[in-house]
Amino acid sequence: MERAPGSGSGSGPGPGPARWAATACVVTGASRGFGRSLARLLAPQLGPGSVLMLLARSGDALAELAAELRAGATGSATGSATGSATGSATGSSELRVQCVPADLGSAEGLRRAGAALWELLRDASFGRLLLVNNAGSLGDISKSFLDLTDLEEIDSYFFFNISSALCLTSTALRAFGARPGCSRTVVNISSLCALEPFPSWALYCSGKAARDMMFRVLALEEPGVRVLNYAPGPLDTDMQLLARSRTGDPELRQRFQRLQEQGQLIPSSVSAQKLLQLLQDDSFPSGAHVDFFDI
Amino acid sequence: MERAPGSGSGSGPGPGPARWAATACVVTGASRGFGRSLARLLAPQLGPGSVLMLLARSGDALAELAAELRAGATGSATGSATGSATGSATGSSELRVQCVPADLGSAEGLRRAGAALWELLRDASFGRLLLVNNAGSLGDISKSFLDLTDLEEIDSYFFFNISSALCLTSTALRAFGARPGCSRTVVNISSLCALEPFPSWALYCSGKAARDMMFRVLALEEPGVRVLNYAPGPLDTDMQLLARSRTGDPELRQRFQRLQEQGQLIPSSVSAQKLLQLLQDDSFPSGAHVDFFDI
Repeated sequence: MERAPGSGSGSGPGPGPARWAATACVVTGASRGFGRSLARLLAPQLGPGSVLMLLARSGDALAELAAELRAGATGSATGSATGSATGSATGSSELRVQCVPADLGSAEGLRRAGAALWELLRDASFGRLLLVNNAGSLGDISKSFLDLTDLEEIDSYFFFNISSALCLTSTALRAFGARPGCSRTVVNISSLCALEPFPSWALYCSGKAARDMMFRVLALEEPGVRVLNYAPGPLDTDMQLLARSRTGDPELRQRFQRLQEQGQLIPSSVSAQKLLQLLQDDSFPSGAHVDFFDI
Repeated sequence: MERAPGSGSGSGPGPGPARWAATACVVTGASRGFGRSLARLLAPQLGPGSVLMLLARSGDALAELAAELRAGATGSATGSATGSATGSATGSSELRVQCVPADLGSAEGLRRAGAALWELLRDASFGRLLLVNNAGSLGDISKSFLDLTDLEEIDSYFFFNISSALCLTSTALRAFGARPGCSRTVVNISSLCALEPFPSWALYCSGKAARDMMFRVLALEEPGVRVLNYAPGPLDTDMQLLARSRTGDPELRQRFQRLQEQGQLIPSSVSAQKLLQLLQDDSFPSGAHVDFFDI
């Protein structure tokens, strides 16, 4: 409460937008792909008094990333194409990085994650909350709608991809509370699949549609919370490798293969940089669905 | 396979569109509200060799409805406003009505429903399948998004409102199979909430958004299946009573109260009649979301 953390506050020494002081920043699915790229870009953005909490299943991968971030090795770490963001080399000596290994697809993992969030976010010294709901899975895209008859498989999918994002978000917002002068932003990593159906992707499309809608409701209910559904575009990640090798529908599979062959996949770091820019500008309408290609 | 059941076939003796012969017609959530009204309108539409399968939790309520339908008492049973459909008094002597009491919110109930569907639909004498996924619940609309922290509550909601509809539909379509000359139609009872967020209705809106998307994927994958997302409008049902008395958001609650006070709620039978008309015309684009007020 002592700090006034509004947009542009903080004390960044480097060029570019000022760093965000006293920010509690939480990224789920942080060990790989888009989540990891985003964590690498967020770290140098976080000023004094900040904590970066990383959640994912793999404790080892998180520990590795945390070590890299703590060492301030946030430069060209992803080694990706031109346009990939590097942030200014601030040296992250003040940044505390906290790893929470937890499987958000299990009730036990979700409880552990919720407890860690609660412990972190009730600390009143934070003036800013940034929660990025990035964790998610494709489901078995080799299956058609008609192949989806295993109730446990379906239920597990929606547990991880819908219920856990809802539960973590409500827990984080309750723990942080609505305090005068504090800013709260919640990001949902969405997809074109939230808007358009894709054959063989019934689980993924319905999960993303549900998430977008859920966060639109949050935006309506909580005008004091900034809510963004960000669709990162077709990323050059392990998930996209699955998409082009496993998708049951042959046409869609070939479409993904062509994207790769023609170099049209987007490096995670490039898309993460666009998200960071959106968060820095902070001018999106709350609840909006913003696609990589829109901006 | 002996029968050619395409649109307009059957042997209805009365005025209006011909009845559908040899139809396996399945309605979930059939014991009350919209599902019951729809079952009452569908019964006289079903010609020789047809079976109407009614699913809901309450065996007693289903048995009562089944007795009414068997007796051909399908006339002005709902006692609702002008415009309510009565169907022609065909006398349903040929119509077999089968009740399946099952809680689609439980794995056990869903298994029982799936087994009953499998048993019914593998009978090759049917030339037409009509599955209406009507069962659904509002969830605890007294709660805001931030109040939704109970994982079991959230997960149960999505199990019933998303997973069970997916599972029942895939099971029904697999059991029926794709046989030459046979028609298959799947209806999802949707809502404006599939498209627009409503405060206090995070669960309902996300569940309906997920369902719409899921059935859009089905429509893409299976050009031989006719798929319709039908939003029945604000109905004068028990669910609407909950909406206007329990909705946490005061403005939305008052909006629902005003709808009722100003007589703007739609009798279930009127909306069910519009759905029946859509099914009889059979000209909707497969996968479309069609609202009561669109037509």
